[in-house]
Amino acid sequence: MEYHTPKKVRDRGIVIGRLPVGEKNCITDVEGVRVGHVTLDYPMDGLDDYACTGVTAILPHGGNLFKDKVTAASCVLNGFGKTTGLFQVNELGVIESPIMLTNTFGVPAVTQGTLQYMLKENPEIGDTTGTINVVVGECNDSHLNSIRRFPVQPEHAIEAIQKASSHVASEGAIGAGKGMVCFGYKGGIGSSSRMIEAGGHSFTVGCLVLSNFGKKEEFREWEYLLRREESVPALSKTTDGSIILVLATDAPLSSRQLQRVVKRCGIGLGRTGSHFSHGSGDIVIGITTARKIPHSTDELIEIRSQLREDHPLFNQLFTGAAEAAEEAILNSLSQAVTTKGRNGHVVHACPLQ
Amino acid sequence: MEYHTPKKVRDRGIVIGRLPVGEKNCITDVEGVRVGHVTLDYPMDGLDDYACTGVTAILPHGGNLFKDKVTAASCVLNGFGKTTGLFQVNELGVIESPIMLTNTFGVPAVTQGTLQYMLKENPEIGDTTGTINVVVGECNDSHLNSIRRFPVQPEHAIEAIQKASSHVASEGAIGAGKGMVCFGYKGGIGSSSRMIEAGGHSFTVGCLVLSNFGKKEEFREWEYLLRREESVPALSKTTDGSIILVLATDAPLSSRQLQRVVKRCGIGLGRTGSHFSHGSGDIVIGITTARKIPHSTDELIEIRSQLREDHPLFNQLFTGAAEAAEEAILNSLSQAVTTKGRNGHVVHACPLQ
Amino acid sequence: MEYHTPKKVRDRGIVIGRLPVGEKNCITDVEGVRVGHVTLDYPMDGLDDYACTGVTAILPHGGNLFKDKVTAASCVLNGFGKTTGLFQVNELGVIESPIMLTNTFGVPAVTQGTLQYMLKENPEIGDTTGTINVVVGECNDSHLNSIRRFPVQPEHAIEAIQKASSHVASEGAIGAGKGMVCFGYKGGIGSSSRMIEAGGHSFTVGCLVLSNFGKKEEFREWEYLLRREESVPALSKTTDGSIILVLATDAPLSSRQLQRVVKRCGIGLGRTGSHFSHGSGDIVIGITTARKIPHSTDELIEIRSQLREDHPLFNQLFTGAAEAAEEAILNSLSQAVTTKGRNGHVVHACPLQ
Amino acid sequence: MEYHTPKKVRDRGIVIGRLPVGEKNCITDVEGVRVGHVTLDYPMDGLDDYACTGVTAILPHGGNLFKDKVTAASCVLNGFGKTTGLFQVNELGVIESPIMLTNTFGVPAVTQGTLQYMLKENPEIGDTTGTINVVVGECNDSHLNSIRRFPVQPEHAIEAIQKASSHVASEGAIGAGKGMVCFGYKGGIGSSSRMIEAGGHSFTVGCLVLSNFGKKEEFREWEYLLRREESVPALSKTTDGSIILVLATDAPLSSRQLQRVVKRCGIGLGRTGSHFSHGSGDIVIGITTARKIPHSTDELIEIRSQLREDHPLFNQLFTGAAEAAEEAILNSLSQAVTTKGRNGHVVHACPLQ
Repeated sequence: MEYHTPKKVRDRGIVIGRLPVGEKNCITDVEGVRVGHVTLDYPMDGLDDYACTGVTAILPHGGNLFKDKVTAASCVLNGFGKTTGLFQVNELGVIESPIMLTNTFGVPAVTQGTLQYMLKENPEIGDTTGTINVVVGECNDSHLNSIRRFPVQPEHAIEAIQKASSHVASEGAIGAGKGMVCFGYKGGIGSSSRMIEAGGHSFTVGCLVLSNFGKKEEFREWEYLLRREESVPALSKTTDGSIILVLATDAPLSSRQLQRVVKRCGIGLGRTGSHFSHGSGDIVIGITTARKIPHSTDELIEIRSQLREDHPLFNQLFTGAAEAAEEAILNSLSQAVTTKGRNGHVVHACPLQ
Repeated sequence: MEYHTPKKVRDRGIVIGRLPVGEKNCITDVEGVRVGHVTLDYPMDGLDDYACTGVTAILPHGGNLFKDKVTAASCVLNGFGKTTGLFQVNELGVIESPIMLTNTFGVPAVTQGTLQYMLKENPEIGDTTGTINVVVGECNDSHLNSIRRFPVQPEHAIEAIQKASSHVASEGAIGAGKGMVCFGYKGGIGSSSRMIEAGGHSFTVGCLVLSNFGKKEEFREWEYLLRREESVPALSKTTDGSIILVLATDAPLSSRQLQRVVKRCGIGLGRTGSHFSHGSGDIVIGITTARKIPHSTDELIEIRSQLREDHPLFNQLFTGAAEAAEEAILNSLSQAVTTKGRNGHVVHACPLQ
Repeated sequence: MEYHTPKKVRDRGIVIGRLPVGEKNCITDVEGVRVGHVTLDYPMDGLDDYACTGVTAILPHGGNLFKDKVTAASCVLNGFGKTTGLFQVNELGVIESPIMLTNTFGVPAVTQGTLQYMLKENPEIGDTTGTINVVVGECNDSHLNSIRRFPVQPEHAIEAIQKASSHVASEGAIGAGKGMVCFGYKGGIGSSSRMIEAGGHSFTVGCLVLSNFGKKEEFREWEYLLRREESVPALSKTTDGSIILVLATDAPLSSRQLQRVVKRCGIGLGRTGSHFSHGSGDIVIGITTARKIPHSTDELIEIRSQLREDHPLFNQLFTGAAEAAEEAILNSLSQAVTTKGRNGHVVHACPLQ
Repeated sequence: MEYHTPKKVRDRGIVIGRLPVGEKNCITDVEGVRVGHVTLDYPMDGLDDYACTGVTAILPHGGNLFKDKVTAASCVLNGFGKTTGLFQVNELGVIESPIMLTNTFGVPAVTQGTLQYMLKENPEIGDTTGTINVVVGECNDSHLNSIRRFPVQPEHAIEAIQKASSHVASEGAIGAGKGMVCFGYKGGIGSSSRMIEAGGHSFTVGCLVLSNFGKKEEFREWEYLLRREESVPALSKTTDGSIILVLATDAPLSSRQLQRVVKRCGIGLGRTGSHFSHGSGDIVIGITTARKIPHSTDELIEIRSQLREDHPLFNQLFTGAAEAAEEAILNSLSQAVTTKGRNGHVVHACPLQ
């Protein structure tokens, strides 16, 4: 029996922060951003083994991501994680692939699948031009998913990319979020957005999270839980979990500026109750879609626009990043349904009002 | 007329977090740590100029800090600040001087005074041995204080060091906190501590802050404010301010481990409502008193003890850092009295219940 | 026709630096360290496709690397690269897997194979304990190797680990070095070591490189080239390449200290003529074998020994890292034989005297 | 008796690298950059005390540096140093003050003097606008200079700024370089420049160093020394010294790009023989004069131009930074004359041919 209908926390009357939300209250409010999921949910041939996992793809835009790169930045809140591809993001300030999310041991397969997809789309990679940098984030879903059996395969990554759309992204126990656990309840995918407006300008900040962290007693939004929560057992977790936060905006920012914005997602994470636990890989990956950076050009000099950081609007980006991150996490809890996985493990939906 | 008696938020019935506090609920709960203040509060000879500032010294122990250094770490949450001495802290993982706090333009004078104090105590520095690294943190108190007039002089730093004691540190509008503003109300010095216990071991985490950040509408602990707050005007700040957080612990940690703990103070800061604003220098400086590292020795190899990071107690250090930081900030608000400064500016005490 | 017999530069009379070399002048001079190679060298079924690549495994010791981890550190000299696993190394200061080297697009397969090896050895990973962090470095060998065809498979990683031995490691166009190009000549695997002695203590620093960087005109050791070099065409490279440097030592160091040592490998790299080109992923990964850190223990407090950094011996570690890195690079050139790969491409052995 | 006439190494027939030098072979080849020195050289009233030190100011341009900031970046090669102001440079990517150089204990006085200069020029700082970030680099000249006596005073900083000109900067034992020691011989101020040209575009890279590092036996340019060097005693140094490298360019770069360029100065430093010794504060500070960033503006969005990093010219900036840094160091040795300081200490000019 499910304790609640999956819906966003706003639809439960819970409002986070002061800024207005975007139309879909989703990362896809940032124009061009697409999200796709592949969910795996089946018993494996071993006695108690179960595939309870998946892949989520976030595409900065609908075109060729290698040919038209986007400005990017990242922030490691706590580095106990196996996310790949971020060194090059930090050095060059660009992302040239979809941002992929999956389980910890699915990283090689998802990297491989994404590589194959990008190579097919770009015959010159590794032949007449250089290589490509693929970004994959991960959390450990081994409580519900038989990660040692490697259910995620390269074709799942390709499928998630191909399915990506700019509609409202599905949230909860879906895609890479299928097997995740947050504050002892079912977590997974959640998203939210904020609108920033000043002086005739309007920008959007969106956040999508893969939530898999926290102990029940750390959860600060306790007051939002229904009184009947006593009857809904939270998982006594033994591992610290992780969270990947993906931030997107259409504000024109340099990678240095974007890195400052991205860092503020950690504020939202902390407000939910997280202390960036020792064993938790807490990582933020950010993009701005404001410009496309061509892979090659004859020009020596590029013209770029960026925001003044002393303009009041800039601080609103910080606020937006923190608020969208916090609400995206709550949305992952608010929408994930009770899920059964390996060894008969059950993780209950969070009994939000 | 003052709206409240200065007292800690616990004495107002406000409890932050889950961990028990130390005996004094102060950074001086960490054995050996000493705090000293010098407060400047007088009209200057200019028409509207006013000295409304000071110096605060935090000493890791009562001995010779150059001869017996302590393990240290720092974290730049937002680097819009003029704190000095942290590059060497990051490279070597030690602090060998008092940690000094003052106003932004007082940094040279306080560095100079601290240097003079340390040189007098150690005749070999700059003669037969190398130099010394002095750590000074700062916030901009120019709303109340005539910083362009440089009221802080080197002798004030020396006096603050000499006054340092291990008693309960005075808090509020005192020392470096004299002229600071937080969430539009009077801020300044605040402190709190937490006890960590596990398996027969007990450690203390203490935090002292110099708070000078935030707009009233960002303050998240709104519900704690008295209803009569409407009648107490908050300052409409035009600058973003800053905050320096000093963390001390007696847990045996390597500098890498301490850096992880120190970073979590940012969680507590975010929970009060801060978004690490663009123009705010938000910096954490941490020490552990668990061992003294001699300046010189004949030994090639040192033996050091440190905590296992996978032990449950380690995560409690993270929780303690976040909780103590948050409560220290609230304590700075809760104890700072209404203060008058340059140009007739008045900043009101925060109308906490 | 080969222009030279593959031998180390010392055997050609070229001496780098002032410190004495270890017995084997190889990273395996650091007790316990093992190196294994798998080399792929065959035409693929496509017209001009050729597998000219491989895998190299460096094992910190011969035991179970997950159960007995080693202190580790890394340094990104230039982050244009796809090396994986270093965020966790930086956060925790340990390595718990073999350090694997391969071509850029071989990273997912090698990560997968290494994971499978480690999971088989440790049935509790991903089941009753957490996950495992695998470190894989890479360079782009696409001039000689058909990387788009993914010749490297997971089983090659497993085989390289199983083949690892503490004998003198084979060098040159072998393992991951099979298809690499350095200064326009054939590069690949090279190694060197240095002995550090002081006050009755003796430590070893070893370095193994995968060299794949530089244009001929940048090569500073020009004077060492034979006069007949004019007749040996260097490759006019179009891409910037990369280099991975692996440093091992038996000196007891904290991860912070090791990071300082590791950084000095960049000095050796610069002395060969590299400018850490824009498109070159120049990354150093370091370990110390001085202690084994158990995966789990009941203890809360660990005792660790480390060197005093103000002892003269410590600076010798810096010198040793720079010298061993420089000589390892020269050794990769000195031992790599002329190699033929995809599209009929030939890269000539460097005409060293 | 002096062993050589002070002249640049090029005038001695020593050519470093492949790129052409600028007209003056000096950092002032970068248009607008100005350099000023104040040198202190007199016995103090103590028995053996001697002021043998000074201040050097590098101005990015001749206008109001607070009102028209420049893009900036820094790189800490080894953080054993007391340089101040770099956190804000790293966070915001700008410098808004002269870059000042002095001795270690002169940092507070030079910061104070520079502050006073900038406050006088900008009455709104600390009153109606925020504060200002001052950048001061330092090396320890205590072998020749009585640093414990604080000979450098705030007015010396002001004087150095006022004296700054765009002529060929004086080099050697002058300004902040008066008391410095390099490779056991007299070091101090040195400068060099490189021209970068491609596709009709031409840019300049200049470097000015304050050299105070290294032991004689580490000096790699040994072959350039005259044979009569045996008769010129090098100092057996007991401390590790330091070096500050200031890089300037007129190429349009973002702060992220500039940071990449700045880092390559470490390659040039390593080529002279340095191993970034434990006790050496080796720090690079870089600016580009390509654009002036106004302190305040009504605009929300700024337009900036920057170079394509995959254009061949970009790597030439790396080469230029390494070459100019190396030659600037040699120039400091080549031009510094034998100097006498405190306690009767004498440091000899380097016997270059």
